[in-house]
Amino acid sequence: MPSAVGITLKQAQAAVEAALKKSQEIGTLMNVAVVDAGANLVAFAHEDGAWLGSIDISQKKARTARYFDMPTGAIGGLSQPGGSLYNIEHSNGGLITFPGGVPIKNGSGEVIGAIGVSGSTVENDHTVAEAGAAAVK
Amino acid sequence: MPSAVGITLKQAQAAVEAALKKSQEIGTLMNVAVVDAGANLVAFAHEDGAWLGSIDISQKKARTARYFDMPTGAIGGLSQPGGSLYNIEHSNGGLITFPGGVPIKNGSGEVIGAIGVSGSTVENDHTVAEAGAAAVK
Amino acid sequence: MPSAVGITLKQAQAAVEAALKKSQEIGTLMNVAVVDAGANLVAFAHEDGAWLGSIDISQKKARTARYFDMPTGAIGGLSQPGGSLYNIEHSNGGLITFPGGVPIKNGSGEVIGAIGVSGSTVENDHTVAEAGAAAVK
Amino acid sequence: MPSAVGITLKQAQAAVEAALKKSQEIGTLMNVAVVDAGANLVAFAHEDGAWLGSIDISQKKARTARYFDMPTGAIGGLSQPGGSLYNIEHSNGGLITFPGGVPIKNGSGEVIGAIGVSGSTVENDHTVAEAGAAAVK
Repeated sequence: MPSAVGITLKQAQAAVEAALKKSQEIGTLMNVAVVDAGANLVAFAHEDGAWLGSIDISQKKARTARYFDMPTGAIGGLSQPGGSLYNIEHSNGGLITFPGGVPIKNGSGEVIGAIGVSGSTVENDHTVAEAGAAAVK
Repeated sequence: MPSAVGITLKQAQAAVEAALKKSQEIGTLMNVAVVDAGANLVAFAHEDGAWLGSIDISQKKARTARYFDMPTGAIGGLSQPGGSLYNIEHSNGGLITFPGGVPIKNGSGEVIGAIGVSGSTVENDHTVAEAGAAAVK
Repeated sequence: MPSAVGITLKQAQAAVEAALKKSQEIGTLMNVAVVDAGANLVAFAHEDGAWLGSIDISQKKARTARYFDMPTGAIGGLSQPGGSLYNIEHSNGGLITFPGGVPIKNGSGEVIGAIGVSGSTVENDHTVAEAGAAAVK
Repeated sequence: MPSAVGITLKQAQAAVEAALKKSQEIGTLMNVAVVDAGANLVAFAHEDGAWLGSIDISQKKARTARYFDMPTGAIGGLSQPGGSLYNIEHSNGGLITFPGGVPIKNGSGEVIGAIGVSGSTVENDHTVAEAGAAAVK
């Protein structure tokens, strides 16, 4: 019997819906992507009129957050010129290391996937991603 | 005011939900992707345990159907050895030309996007894609 | 606490060692790759003097077998000209659909990864892959 | 009679095992890759729960170290803004120029391959890579 690799579709869709709700509350137009524990896409939504370039960025943020099990912005703090991870973005077919991607954990604290959000300021992107991740128990 | 390029998120999500419903009725595990009139991803869902390789294929089917405004299987009939479009699959970063991708039209018959489905036989993939496309008015 | 996505390193290394043993028995020079349930590389070995071009092929075989949870040769039977999956190889950054990749299951029959072998005839590649997969309980 | 291009599988596996031993001693979860004198992958291991994004990074570190026959961190010192090798990371399908990759030499001091390690701080990555390289005589 095939099974999900970490996060289920039902959980991923709940994360997307919670993120879209937060996006509408704060008046942004977002792209929202959720990947599983293997960094494979599980659910995605592009709000009408959201930046087209953020379709790819939201997916790369989700994968980056799962690849390293931390918020994407934490990596960006280390990948600056002179930083210990300078230009890590060249790996894995392209990483995005500014805020907007966060791991998704289950009730036991295990990482089961990640969410990536792109479409506004990085602060807003992060806020919306957090709202999405919080919807998964 | 930014606006959708053809299909809206609401319409795309309706197409995904109708496709998932059909998939469950016929007992398959599908990946379902919907792109807009610009061939950009709008909505996506991966059923628990569906083939991981079909995540990419479903998206390529959706784009292929919109790139040429016809069902993907119609292109596959022409891309065979000796055919007029032999190996067209090498273009556009990779096309998929077997059944499972169909254009989505609005009430006026205008193409506003496309849906791609992958996860079972190509006959089932096409059936589920048709069910998704039919949910958009 | 981080955990493996399906197959563990210990299991993957056992599969590689069993495959190398079989390769030596039948007098071939092989590349052997094992991926986890998320299609990510876990273990790899290249025998001295094995074809360099098979380093990539063995990894693509392993990923292809996990992407569709079946031996790679089963897909190749359908991707021929006129077949229902013609040119599926253009997806997922390149698939390999001739024999040599097989899923790896645990004792409960759940797919936990896959092994890909390349370096000789496809019959030998498949034989060595089977020997590797059989070493995982 | 085909032969290894520099490092043998036996030597590469000894390097991987020594690196894994060091990783366990210092309490990290690492990805370890060894390439030959032609910069082709010879052996690889991913510890259970190690970062998935480091699978690619460890291989890029190993290749980078062999491409230029020096520790990856030495290149990173020159690839900063204003440096003589600014953004060299764009070449060769993506380089990684922070510490964790080191050349592997034989008893005569000839470079026969390289090892790349990723999964912790760059200091730990480098320490583990050195331990791996030192296991090859």
